[in-house]
Amino acid sequence: MTKTAVLRGLKWAALIAGTLVLGLLAIALLGLAGRYIQVTLFDLDIAPEHLQQKQEYLDALPKAAADAPNFVVIFFDDLGWGDLSSYGNQLIRTPHMDRAAAEGLLMTDFYSASPVCTPSRAALLTGRYPPRTGTDRHVFFPEGSLIALIRRMMGWPNRLPKDEITIAEALRHAGYKTGMVGKWHLGGQEGHKPNDFGFDSWYGVLWSNDMYPLHLYRDGDIFQEDKRPGGWMSGEWDETKPLGPGGIDQTELTQSYTDEAIKFIESSAGKPFFLYLAHTFPHVPHYPSSEHAGTSEGGTYGDVVEDLDRSTGAIMDALDRLGLSDNTVVFITSDNGADYNGSPGGLRGRKQEIYEGGQRVPMIVRWPGQIEAGMRSSMPAMNIDLFPTMMRLSGLPLPADRIIDGVDISEPLRQTDRVIERELFYFPTLRTLPGAIRHNEFKYLYNTGNTGRARGHLSRLDKDGEAHELSARHPGIAERLSTSLDAMRTEIEANPRGWVD
Amino acid sequence: MTKTAVLRGLKWAALIAGTLVLGLLAIALLGLAGRYIQVTLFDLDIAPEHLQQKQEYLDALPKAAADAPNFVVIFFDDLGWGDLSSYGNQLIRTPHMDRAAAEGLLMTDFYSASPVCTPSRAALLTGRYPPRTGTDRHVFFPEGSLIALIRRMMGWPNRLPKDEITIAEALRHAGYKTGMVGKWHLGGQEGHKPNDFGFDSWYGVLWSNDMYPLHLYRDGDIFQEDKRPGGWMSGEWDETKPLGPGGIDQTELTQSYTDEAIKFIESSAGKPFFLYLAHTFPHVPHYPSSEHAGTSEGGTYGDVVEDLDRSTGAIMDALDRLGLSDNTVVFITSDNGADYNGSPGGLRGRKQEIYEGGQRVPMIVRWPGQIEAGMRSSMPAMNIDLFPTMMRLSGLPLPADRIIDGVDISEPLRQTDRVIERELFYFPTLRTLPGAIRHNEFKYLYNTGNTGRARGHLSRLDKDGEAHELSARHPGIAERLSTSLDAMRTEIEANPRGWVD
Repeated sequence: MTKTAVLRGLKWAALIAGTLVLGLLAIALLGLAGRYIQVTLFDLDIAPEHLQQKQEYLDALPKAAADAPNFVVIFFDDLGWGDLSSYGNQLIRTPHMDRAAAEGLLMTDFYSASPVCTPSRAALLTGRYPPRTGTDRHVFFPEGSLIALIRRMMGWPNRLPKDEITIAEALRHAGYKTGMVGKWHLGGQEGHKPNDFGFDSWYGVLWSNDMYPLHLYRDGDIFQEDKRPGGWMSGEWDETKPLGPGGIDQTELTQSYTDEAIKFIESSAGKPFFLYLAHTFPHVPHYPSSEHAGTSEGGTYGDVVEDLDRSTGAIMDALDRLGLSDNTVVFITSDNGADYNGSPGGLRGRKQEIYEGGQRVPMIVRWPGQIEAGMRSSMPAMNIDLFPTMMRLSGLPLPADRIIDGVDISEPLRQTDRVIERELFYFPTLRTLPGAIRHNEFKYLYNTGNTGRARGHLSRLDKDGEAHELSARHPGIAERLSTSLDAMRTEIEANPRGWVD
Repeated sequence: MTKTAVLRGLKWAALIAGTLVLGLLAIALLGLAGRYIQVTLFDLDIAPEHLQQKQEYLDALPKAAADAPNFVVIFFDDLGWGDLSSYGNQLIRTPHMDRAAAEGLLMTDFYSASPVCTPSRAALLTGRYPPRTGTDRHVFFPEGSLIALIRRMMGWPNRLPKDEITIAEALRHAGYKTGMVGKWHLGGQEGHKPNDFGFDSWYGVLWSNDMYPLHLYRDGDIFQEDKRPGGWMSGEWDETKPLGPGGIDQTELTQSYTDEAIKFIESSAGKPFFLYLAHTFPHVPHYPSSEHAGTSEGGTYGDVVEDLDRSTGAIMDALDRLGLSDNTVVFITSDNGADYNGSPGGLRGRKQEIYEGGQRVPMIVRWPGQIEAGMRSSMPAMNIDLFPTMMRLSGLPLPADRIIDGVDISEPLRQTDRVIERELFYFPTLRTLPGAIRHNEFKYLYNTGNTGRARGHLSRLDKDGEAHELSARHPGIAERLSTSLDAMRTEIEANPRGWVD
């Protein structure tokens, strides 16, 4: 080998190494920039007319009757369909939720609107599918993190758009007292926190508990600061090795949420109220209360779920004590299916997937004045239905300038033989268009979003889960569902935000 | 920009494009080479003393008694734990297998030794875990394919080593008539086909039915050639779009296997025999018999499983008709758990994974003379147990020069209260060392082989599947299982093939 050849080789090596180093440097610089600079290069267009229509709708809302029902929505984070004893779990004991189910309605076929957090929360509060609310690109990330910066550079929203109407805004304009306790995960920028979307009061955190920083807020102000030496990567990527000390005490979160929720209920007596209690657990990492850690047969996961169960019991006890139970509808549900360490209860798939295990969640509805004890329903329904259902129960009209994807299920809640037949759609976490459709017992899966293999999979949920592809046996049903799915895909492609002209 | 700069840019572009083209060319050439040249760059060392010890063991085997039991092993490909009606399936009807279960023993906690095909087959035939037989690198590929060439270049075996002792070899030396019908998948080179490993006769295919070429063999000779224009990539990567015409008729495979199996049984009367019927289905792509296509409530998958059920019924009928049933042990099981379109019956995971759904399989044992009707057993056992169990039942000794990982379960088969307590190990498909251990109702998962997240996961299979991590609740058990797993890892690292000095 000549000297020139050696030199040439060295030159090449230097070039490759240089490129790598420069690439890493660019990433690091982006991360640093993300920490100090909040640039929104692209965002959803917020047209003034939608803001104006929203305001007109809210201003025109009538006052709710003085005896309109109160609403309490207890919303868990990552609780799986099989994680409660009333849903068949054999290790975790959830006697208070079991009692709620025994006193009211247990729904076996209830869904979150997404297999991940942010779009599911947006759906619950607005009654709309993920692309409607601009939450069709997985979950939001803390401002200051690299991923938040990248999201903005990609044109992926990182906050709930101001033109969305939340159930809190509507109820508040109708005279309800509205309170939120717990996790938001719908944006952290100024003007996009819970108090900016209709909640009179808020106590809680902005992000998931594996994200950084995790401050504790009261009404938009940090009142316990997360002082851990967190990184610009945004979170605890290995949640079995949480960040060091200096953070808020997560072992006390469930209890402090509960105390705040009860305080809110106590202070609301005499006026219709809406409480949105969005728990932090059982999302990872798990911090059981010090009092009960290590006591559940279901391990640490069971500990945190049993903490949540005691919390739910305390809420119901407060309602009973204040004589409010008969006029308060309590919804108990979860933002998506089981994560890798929860129980999907025999369903296929988990969080992040549009298989049943990713979106089927518990739903217990307690309303002693109206729902008979021990009711069971296998009617398919979704958390997009809460907005129209609560609006109907409080006698309020829905907005007319936008598509509300959910339907009013206030009748089937009280009379389980009044089944509403409709099509439900499933949205993969990084797609704008739906990837599956359910109608009655059949589900047609066209695109899981993460594996190409399952395309064109018709399944019969009542008897076979999502095991076998049944198109050959039921070609007519496969064809019909595929056509409906295509139609919805076309509609959403043309009008993702669902505006009505 | 100067002319020199432009030229420099062009030079770079040419360099990058050239590298890409050369790379693609290299892959294509490798593929071509693989098609015509069979080079074994590395392979397992086959030491002469192991071959000699094997021969000495076989030569020293006594003759089995004239009334020694016959064995029929019916081995399905990718049939899931939840795919039979006797295992809870609600759409697929398997009345013949249900009858076998009703007449004999149904095991709820039976495992294949691997979540994929090749190592599981090696384990069944030798009684040994995957690394013992050199099958710890996923599945073998057809000679002539690019992957087979790459395997050889990586030093990954592509054939069962000649020093392994199969149950067919042992029984044949003891005077059994041995027959194989169906899929081999333990190598396609000369000297490594079924007749070279102890089978008097063989009718079937070398590979999975999504691999190419898929010739039909009789005793080592191709008798129906696969003439499809297949590629050097080895198979049907998209099994919903199978290769064109010119291949063997897969719609008739199950029936022709059945006919051959019955002919073998008929021709064996009067001499103890061992029949290994290794079906091609329900592996994808699915080709139901033309007579019954479209008839199963379980779709096309159900069609092929019901074909297999009719086949199993025909085998049992033949045994009944020939008066052989009372002295014939029929084992009905599968080579691994459900693939993406089968049913794991509520278990976590699927084929390729060491979660339960990847390895838990049906096991029905019918032996009217010895096993009472309607027995059920939840004793954990694995297909490595078949070798020692059959050897015991035919009164033959095991080899002493090598570790046999399986244990004799001939007693618990007949008396389900005689439970054998032991540790079972799970091997991820591309790892030499085990990634999980089961003891009684507890399973400790250290490494799934495909996700780092589940490490250190203790679960309680009887009550919670693999949902929740229970180490915090049962630290002593987690510690004990982790220690056992470490010990096995150390042992296998030191002596992967399991030779006894």
